[in-house]
Amino acid sequence: MIKRSELQIARQRTAELFRHAGIVLSEEEKERIEIAEFGLGQLERQGLKLVTYVNTDRYCAKELVLFPGQTCPEHKHPPIGDDPGKMETFRCRYGSVLLYVEGEPTPDIRALLPEGSEKYYTVFHEIVLMPGQQYTIPPNTLHWFQGGDEGAVVSEFSSTSRDEFDVFTDPHIKRMPEIEED
Amino acid sequence: MIKRSELQIARQRTAELFRHAGIVLSEEEKERIEIAEFGLGQLERQGLKLVTYVNTDRYCAKELVLFPGQTCPEHKHPPIGDDPGKMETFRCRYGSVLLYVEGEPTPDIRALLPEGSEKYYTVFHEIVLMPGQQYTIPPNTLHWFQGGDEGAVVSEFSSTSRDEFDVFTDPHIKRMPEIEED
Repeated sequence: MIKRSELQIARQRTAELFRHAGIVLSEEEKERIEIAEFGLGQLERQGLKLVTYVNTDRYCAKELVLFPGQTCPEHKHPPIGDDPGKMETFRCRYGSVLLYVEGEPTPDIRALLPEGSEKYYTVFHEIVLMPGQQYTIPPNTLHWFQGGDEGAVVSEFSSTSRDEFDVFTDPHIKRMPEIEED
Repeated sequence: MIKRSELQIARQRTAELFRHAGIVLSEEEKERIEIAEFGLGQLERQGLKLVTYVNTDRYCAKELVLFPGQTCPEHKHPPIGDDPGKMETFRCRYGSVLLYVEGEPTPDIRALLPEGSEKYYTVFHEIVLMPGQQYTIPPNTLHWFQGGDEGAVVSEFSSTSRDEFDVFTDPHIKRMPEIEED
């Protein structure tokens, strides 16, 4: 649950990060910046902001924004029918992003696990992306990511996006946020 | 045919437009900026610069760069086997791009047709894209585009790219450039 006033502030901070990154949005896109707080009520700690540029039955492109230290919780994109699951490429445009995927755990990871939710983070192979660096996450692979010290703006290029099928490690998560009137 | 020295200069000018757009490339990407002159030997008039970020069997993402007045010649992406042809979304990041597709011809288009090649331009439905604006070109649809007064940097989000199957209206065009040693 998130208050409409909190949403508005988050939208403004997101627009500011887009400006730092030199990324121009249309007025219509600014209005529909999606603030995902995953039903956890702790947007600063676990949340994500996104703008979907295009999502067709063939491909998808989004811009993702993270505040400093903000974490998009661990999840995967499972197979759906003939689709082996969403495959996605993250390209850092501004700031830095700490990305964790399945594989050999990195000792002493740089990210701080969100307090109280530590047990819902299970993959620790670290990839640090700076501007101009990118990484492709295979389908059906657990991953989570956190904004670095200046936050992050990340272009996501992918196969078709069907967020409603995402599988989160934390069973409390609801992908679609509810809004509480002030 | 293009000289290696011309290629080097085009790469430098392209890197400059990326800087204006606030887009960061890795050193490796800067080295492999593709300069397409289509075998016409008139890169300033008819040509395109591109960096492919990712091209999988599911999706593709590139950054396209046009000098002011530079034209990417008319072409389409035909069906290949089960694939209905490449579908692509152009999103203007910097400058402006004049895009022409099939449909109702626009009277008094803004672009100047490349001298001597006028007859190879046959579609004139004009779409002008400024930063933050985008347009999706359906598969198997003729299109061409030209950089505006400041040139253009354009993100292309698409289905899988198979440039070698592109069909150009001008029969003299060869998609893959040859390099002449100085």
